[in-house]
Amino acid sequence: MADHNALPLLVLTEQFARLPGIGMKTAERLAYYMISQSPEDVEAFANALISAKREIRHCSCCLNLTDKDICPICEDSTRDHSTICVVEGPKDVTAFERTNEYNGVYHVLHGLISPLDGILPDQLKIRELLARVQKGGVREIIMATNPTVEGDATAMYIAQLLKPMDIKVTRLAFGLPVGGILEYADEVTLYKALENRNEM
Amino acid sequence: MADHNALPLLVLTEQFARLPGIGMKTAERLAYYMISQSPEDVEAFANALISAKREIRHCSCCLNLTDKDICPICEDSTRDHSTICVVEGPKDVTAFERTNEYNGVYHVLHGLISPLDGILPDQLKIRELLARVQKGGVREIIMATNPTVEGDATAMYIAQLLKPMDIKVTRLAFGLPVGGILEYADEVTLYKALENRNEM
Repeated sequence: MADHNALPLLVLTEQFARLPGIGMKTAERLAYYMISQSPEDVEAFANALISAKREIRHCSCCLNLTDKDICPICEDSTRDHSTICVVEGPKDVTAFERTNEYNGVYHVLHGLISPLDGILPDQLKIRELLARVQKGGVREIIMATNPTVEGDATAMYIAQLLKPMDIKVTRLAFGLPVGGILEYADEVTLYKALENRNEM
Repeated sequence: MADHNALPLLVLTEQFARLPGIGMKTAERLAYYMISQSPEDVEAFANALISAKREIRHCSCCLNLTDKDICPICEDSTRDHSTICVVEGPKDVTAFERTNEYNGVYHVLHGLISPLDGILPDQLKIRELLARVQKGGVREIIMATNPTVEGDATAMYIAQLLKPMDIKVTRLAFGLPVGGILEYADEVTLYKALENRNEM
């Protein structure tokens, strides 16, 4: 931006530009938009930022994001606490909850094993998962990490650790996405769909 | 978002979703991103919002956004204050400044006449422009609003008001964009390019 621009506007633009997927052009547009809002609206935004950061923490059981000590899912006694769905991040929990079909609980790893990016198993919440299992009462662990190299490796790694504990470990099914078009499916997906075919 | 999500996170997501061009999915992603930043970084963002809104005002001369009483452009005595470039918004000033070719000053209308959207001439900074001209010392007014129905109408309207004041009023040239491809130009642009052709 040209140097004639007022400094506070420049600072705000740069803050917006630091957000993922937001370039300088969009950041400039957003900064101008915020300036055009009422002082109350701008303050509400600033407060939302501060209080989200201050109040959101990891659930001490499943490590999902929450503003309580134990998240509502872990606290819900009507849910099946013997089934734990292991996911990469909080967004995956949201995705599963949207299905309205899953009644177990979760465990959020906060990442996937990725040696190339310097992310080793120690940096994930795997220790916490093992501690939960050791407390007893768990019958099944569903490995629900993404079907990617990192997701598969992480699922495999955790499955190995759980083996001696004599617990059922399952993996999400892979196949054609519902509503997908066969001719556009990639080879690996199609192979998986064929391999895991079910009797009708 | 599902109701299991923590309230402060939901509030922040909704704040992001209110920004223009940002949907719920992106807003969610941005909210999660902010949570993952350090408290200092989040506070810096919040402060940038607050201080931009508090410190940015309209230049008392050209009405561009600035954090001073008079903006640096209006205060610059090396610039030609007898030529005023009239633009729709502050972003247009930035665009002209980027050319490094314009040495006059600006006047920001903060909108265009658009009766269908309920924007009438009174809501624009036209009165302020006339007051500047009446003070004297102005030789040329360049109407640099967009080549749209609203932009043209606004330029025409202001030109009419300036007529009795005996001041040169000009309009930006319309034609092929530099680097543009002729076969992709729309008919009106091509017609304008033909009509305004120059001798080589």
